[in-house]
Amino acid sequence: MDNNGKKRILTGDRPTGRLHLGHYVGSIANRVRLQDEYECFFIIADLHTLTTKPEKEHIEELADNVRQMVLDYLACGIDPAKSTIYLQSAVPEVTELALFFNDLVSVPRLQRIPSIKEMAKNANLSELPFGLLGYPVLQAADILMPRATLVPVGKDNESHVELTREIAKRFNFMYGDVFPLPEVMVSDFGSLVGTDGQAKMSKSLNNAIFLSDDEKTVQKKVNGMFTDPNRTSADVPGRVEGNPVFIYHDAFNPNKEEVEDLKARYKTGKVGDVEVKQKLAVALNNFLNPIRERRSHFEKQSGYVDEVIYNGTLRMREEARETLSLAKKAMGLSSVWNRISRKAEETRKKREKGE
Amino acid sequence: MDNNGKKRILTGDRPTGRLHLGHYVGSIANRVRLQDEYECFFIIADLHTLTTKPEKEHIEELADNVRQMVLDYLACGIDPAKSTIYLQSAVPEVTELALFFNDLVSVPRLQRIPSIKEMAKNANLSELPFGLLGYPVLQAADILMPRATLVPVGKDNESHVELTREIAKRFNFMYGDVFPLPEVMVSDFGSLVGTDGQAKMSKSLNNAIFLSDDEKTVQKKVNGMFTDPNRTSADVPGRVEGNPVFIYHDAFNPNKEEVEDLKARYKTGKVGDVEVKQKLAVALNNFLNPIRERRSHFEKQSGYVDEVIYNGTLRMREEARETLSLAKKAMGLSSVWNRISRKAEETRKKREKGE
Repeated sequence: MDNNGKKRILTGDRPTGRLHLGHYVGSIANRVRLQDEYECFFIIADLHTLTTKPEKEHIEELADNVRQMVLDYLACGIDPAKSTIYLQSAVPEVTELALFFNDLVSVPRLQRIPSIKEMAKNANLSELPFGLLGYPVLQAADILMPRATLVPVGKDNESHVELTREIAKRFNFMYGDVFPLPEVMVSDFGSLVGTDGQAKMSKSLNNAIFLSDDEKTVQKKVNGMFTDPNRTSADVPGRVEGNPVFIYHDAFNPNKEEVEDLKARYKTGKVGDVEVKQKLAVALNNFLNPIRERRSHFEKQSGYVDEVIYNGTLRMREEARETLSLAKKAMGLSSVWNRISRKAEETRKKREKGE
Repeated sequence: MDNNGKKRILTGDRPTGRLHLGHYVGSIANRVRLQDEYECFFIIADLHTLTTKPEKEHIEELADNVRQMVLDYLACGIDPAKSTIYLQSAVPEVTELALFFNDLVSVPRLQRIPSIKEMAKNANLSELPFGLLGYPVLQAADILMPRATLVPVGKDNESHVELTREIAKRFNFMYGDVFPLPEVMVSDFGSLVGTDGQAKMSKSLNNAIFLSDDEKTVQKKVNGMFTDPNRTSADVPGRVEGNPVFIYHDAFNPNKEEVEDLKARYKTGKVGDVEVKQKLAVALNNFLNPIRERRSHFEKQSGYVDEVIYNGTLRMREEARETLSLAKKAMGLSSVWNRISRKAEETRKKREKGE
């Protein structure tokens, strides 16, 4: 289960394309920190996108989305020399493992998972697709494939890791110890509010600042940010708590003195939104500049991103073959085919010798 | 879809072990007839046994069950030179195809399939396993994998073929024409009553005469058969309709004159059960003798059965790879990985040349 004594982590994303600041604070920053201490597997979960977006138009966007997302990973400092980045759909062993797991979990158990109904609602689906109900089972197979022991997740995915533990426990009980019982690692920073101040930052809500946005775009998006709506002019005292402009200042402006000064003046009506926003744009651009530079560096190296995903996927396939083989051996399933193929090969050889 | 202009058939069995007379009249006899006119694929559906019997003790029985069942196939005249007999779990492509299909069907649609609830009840399961609810989706993948156009089924599986058509239709509509819409081919002979006259012949009900039973066993089982319970002695007129002894006479005794004579005398109380049963045992043994001989012939050829399954499975895997590749291409999914791997390989080669 361990490599050089390191515990294993499995986490990742659906390939929705370029990542934004919300991804950074919610998970990517954490991953960059984790990769020295742990052996990390980062899944590009393209099969999961099919559960809510099976339409061809969405599948056709995947190739570019995968590329853009991995460029962001690399730009943020995820290091393919330390961590394995792989494409889920190119590791078909996971569909086999998921099928075995399907028999170890009941329909009512899956129906009790809150995120499932939520996802169906968000995807505007009148009837729950069977694949969506099985989404946490496929996720269990993702997690258990590299026999990960730790899973960094957001609040909304905690129940999926709990199900993964149940499946692992049930499998081990029925067939013998194959899987670890993975632990949840909840990240300290939750979700980041969008520029509209209304909802979690999200590409689809058009309230996101992307890691790959250029300086002018960031400036423009910050200028259009929601602040305190009761503050009709610069001399009206404003609210700092829950104000997205200050949430971003707290998260991305390393000059704590400047942030405290702005907050104090904001509360007492002694600073205009314009100044607060200008300083935020500067801070964000300072934060994003090294990311942009690395992104552009990797983007220029033709084929580099492809090699990262390719090598990571080949590496993961080795793991997957090993795990699947252990699982099938424990189940007693591999012996069926092994016996047949061995005997058939022996018979063929004997016949060829005899002739 | 066709091979030498022949339509394709997919059908098969869960590997429950030795086959009985009920299997013969219900499906095997039909398959033997079909294999000249059609290109037949016979699936040994071991993955399906996991949906209701995932316990290790049952999996451990599979190897022998598969062997015994295929011996019966061959003994009955299924010819591996004409037809493909393959082991489902050794064609993992089917789990991938099933996963794609999972997203094209809703939970309520599957819940409406009558056989699912029935199976859960029979298997004594308190809560419906997720894998059992998905059983007809996996079956759709089985059928569509060789792009079969005809599916010979019993009454209880008609609704599964209907679902398969829906899935094929939906896939073709969403991604382009890949799959034929398979037709149901209901066999004219339904199920055969067991020796107890109470229920369908079934191994688990202990009311079965197996194709591999020896002469004495057949004699003994026939002697113990249920007949007309109101007939306390040979001179009491008896019922012929629904009487299992006469059902078997009709099905297996080629001497129609003898059968009509026995029926006439039975109705008028002019024949004893002993004579009717003795003649039935003779007829059954005459029917079974060539099957027994072929069975023993194949059994003695060490490794023959293994080669049949092995070669059939390799043949099916070729088909499966082709179908899966067509499906992924139509979905646009293969291009994601193809692009990455091609570019990665090119880049590696360029670098190696440059160095």
